[in-house]
Amino acid sequence: MDFDALFNEQLDALKSDGNYRYFAELERKCGKFPKAANHADDGVRDVTVWCSNDYLGMGQHPKVIDAMKEAVERTGTGAGGTRNISGTNHDHLLLEAELADLHGKEAALIFTSGYVSNWASLSTLGSRLENCVILSDAGNHASMIEGIRHSKAKKVIWRHNDVADLEEKLAAIPADHPKIVAFESVYSMDGDIAPIEAILDVAEKYGAMTYIDEVHAVGMYGKRGGGVSEELGLAHRITLIEGTLGKAFGCVGGYITGSAALCDFIRSFASGFIFTTALPPAVAAAARVSIAHLKESQFERAGQRRQVAKLRAMLDAQGIPHMPNDSHIVPVMIGDPVKTKMLADYLMDEWNIYVQPINYPTVPKGTERLRFTPSPLHTDEDIAYLVSALTVLWKQCAIAHQVA
Amino acid sequence: MDFDALFNEQLDALKSDGNYRYFAELERKCGKFPKAANHADDGVRDVTVWCSNDYLGMGQHPKVIDAMKEAVERTGTGAGGTRNISGTNHDHLLLEAELADLHGKEAALIFTSGYVSNWASLSTLGSRLENCVILSDAGNHASMIEGIRHSKAKKVIWRHNDVADLEEKLAAIPADHPKIVAFESVYSMDGDIAPIEAILDVAEKYGAMTYIDEVHAVGMYGKRGGGVSEELGLAHRITLIEGTLGKAFGCVGGYITGSAALCDFIRSFASGFIFTTALPPAVAAAARVSIAHLKESQFERAGQRRQVAKLRAMLDAQGIPHMPNDSHIVPVMIGDPVKTKMLADYLMDEWNIYVQPINYPTVPKGTERLRFTPSPLHTDEDIAYLVSALTVLWKQCAIAHQVA
Ligand SMILES: Cc1ncc(COP(=O)(O)O)c(C=O)c1O
Ligand SMILES: Cc1ncc(COP(=O)(O)O)c(C=O)c1O
Repeated sequence: MDFDALFNEQLDALKSDGNYRYFAELERKCGKFPKAANHADDGVRDVTVWCSNDYLGMGQHPKVIDAMKEAVERTGTGAGGTRNISGTNHDHLLLEAELADLHGKEAALIFTSGYVSNWASLSTLGSRLENCVILSDAGNHASMIEGIRHSKAKKVIWRHNDVADLEEKLAAIPADHPKIVAFESVYSMDGDIAPIEAILDVAEKYGAMTYIDEVHAVGMYGKRGGGVSEELGLAHRITLIEGTLGKAFGCVGGYITGSAALCDFIRSFASGFIFTTALPPAVAAAARVSIAHLKESQFERAGQRRQVAKLRAMLDAQGIPHMPNDSHIVPVMIGDPVKTKMLADYLMDEWNIYVQPINYPTVPKGTERLRFTPSPLHTDEDIAYLVSALTVLWKQCAIAHQVA
Repeated sequence: MDFDALFNEQLDALKSDGNYRYFAELERKCGKFPKAANHADDGVRDVTVWCSNDYLGMGQHPKVIDAMKEAVERTGTGAGGTRNISGTNHDHLLLEAELADLHGKEAALIFTSGYVSNWASLSTLGSRLENCVILSDAGNHASMIEGIRHSKAKKVIWRHNDVADLEEKLAAIPADHPKIVAFESVYSMDGDIAPIEAILDVAEKYGAMTYIDEVHAVGMYGKRGGGVSEELGLAHRITLIEGTLGKAFGCVGGYITGSAALCDFIRSFASGFIFTTALPPAVAAAARVSIAHLKESQFERAGQRRQVAKLRAMLDAQGIPHMPNDSHIVPVMIGDPVKTKMLADYLMDEWNIYVQPINYPTVPKGTERLRFTPSPLHTDEDIAYLVSALTVLWKQCAIAHQVA
């Protein structure tokens, strides 16, 4: 059987729909973020990255860099085993304690990624709690969706951010069936924020456990970077808070926090936690320093808010439509994969501005977009330059100025 | 609903079966491997680690350490995005080229872990190839099992390493259904090696694609560390070779290699590849140096083989039974979780020897064991000391000298 032919058939379909993905090949340059070198067919050029999820530039913070180098020297480059079989290091436990403290929880558990933390936790909860029903926001991330699917638990999807719909669905489930309400705080592609308090109110009313993904909020919201749940003073009402070490904290890895029993349960039963090499202790050490720094420092968060507001104001001044939201994510809707890629290519080739075209399956078809993530390290000049480029482009291409 | 009570109920069941897991809390000490500090209730003590999967000690190799530190200084501590959205770095592509070359394949694709590489690849292949049937060796690793299950493809389990059974099952599937034969080279818990050539013969006869997990072989087998498939000159006949960067290569991460179309297919469709932050470029850089070193150097492999043979010979001399196999893994069967833990505790407390008790679900119930992994860095004295400890213990405990 010609397997390559089968693969190419499906790849060709992607290509003809404009959904085939070309990855930009960057060289991050420590100390220069958001500048990076871009490798293109015609050579290597410096570009300004406008779509990084190293939201606060912590991936190049001197303290974080030093912590990683120090820990590499001290412990080496890997953990050398799964958590159970020689892979648990002191640095992992220190990080877990830091994370539990960050969210005001009894315990924390780290995973190789945020994706795995969601997938492993939801699949374990859904499969091991008898008669469990998982109520999943329609906008939830792929990692949650796959975890729920893998659990084979009954899944009920409620309309995105629609608490009335959630309540209706909660009410329809027998009282003695364990229920998990799963949602995110900041939705990464639209940048909208869940009505967390209202969700908690109805979840509590029906005795449901709450599971929040704060991947796009940790480090950036709350006085100590504990996410939107900290900012709103609601963390203590949430059963499980999940996050990543790979975005605002600038490293890699994921985690959950919650009660000691909850974390021990996932630790003891989750295949995706058990059967895999632990994160390098050096990654754990670097992440811990990043978290600790952002617990104290308001500097990065304030800088991000300032530059996000500036970008929005300048886009408004030029009549370039962007989706309104209360977060740090600035989506500019295009609504067509080919046009979106064309615009992104143009920005890269003519202006040395890198913003990845966002297409299916990351967003629904027809909602393709450019997604800008201003950081505290984007200068006012970077913003002015970006907006002038977009202004020129908008005139040239006569893009419909519509917001989805 | 009292969720903690539900969690504790299942944890209590684990405890009463002797299957609850206690993680040893280590401090790896770069340059001192296999020595590490162990944090116990009564203080911190140096121990000799006998169960690490940093099989060759590459996690502390000066070249690998330097590569990681250099890359942290150059690129920072994280990738800052998913592979599609600003997360692809030059270092990732260099690593992928290195891996493709290692296995003599057109292309390679890296993942955050070996677990994710198996899970994501098998779930994508199984779900996207119409009528696909996956023929899975009964001894396959959890990451493969979960990937197959997630794919919802038809799954046929063949008896462990039994090619006649595989052939019978292949013959029963309609000729026009895509078939994937999935197996490992070195099985990590028994240390036995698959009859790869015979498997390829029948797979080819029935037009099946072959998927091999070489996680416990890469770096250690073959003249260039390309695994058992390289050692036997069979790599070119295998469709997909999967491996890890977290064991013999001493870092973290996983990968697949195969045709360009195959890798592009997984890259384009696998949720577990797409929706997650890329490995830090610094990890990619360190792994690449480790792989490149083991392509040239026979020193580590020769040292490992020598120390494995020594340990086996000395165990034999003392009449301590261990499972015979052709690999670097030395399992000593105990067959009871409580006894296994007792022995391991005794070795740690009285002898400063750390070997994790291996229990369910890592191995089937009733096959609990101690699993020793001699590295080139375990000295002759380390081996003599371990064997003398086991000899004393065997006499004291009058363990049945049975091999499973
Ligand atoms: C909402 C959400 N959850 C989880 C993840 C996965 O986190 P990680 O990148 O650490 O795997 C992502 C994106 O990557 C995400 O957007
Ligand atoms: C056979 C096998 N495949 C895959 C994995 C997963 O690899 P990783 O540790 O890189 O996640 C493991 C163990 O961890 C394994 O034993």
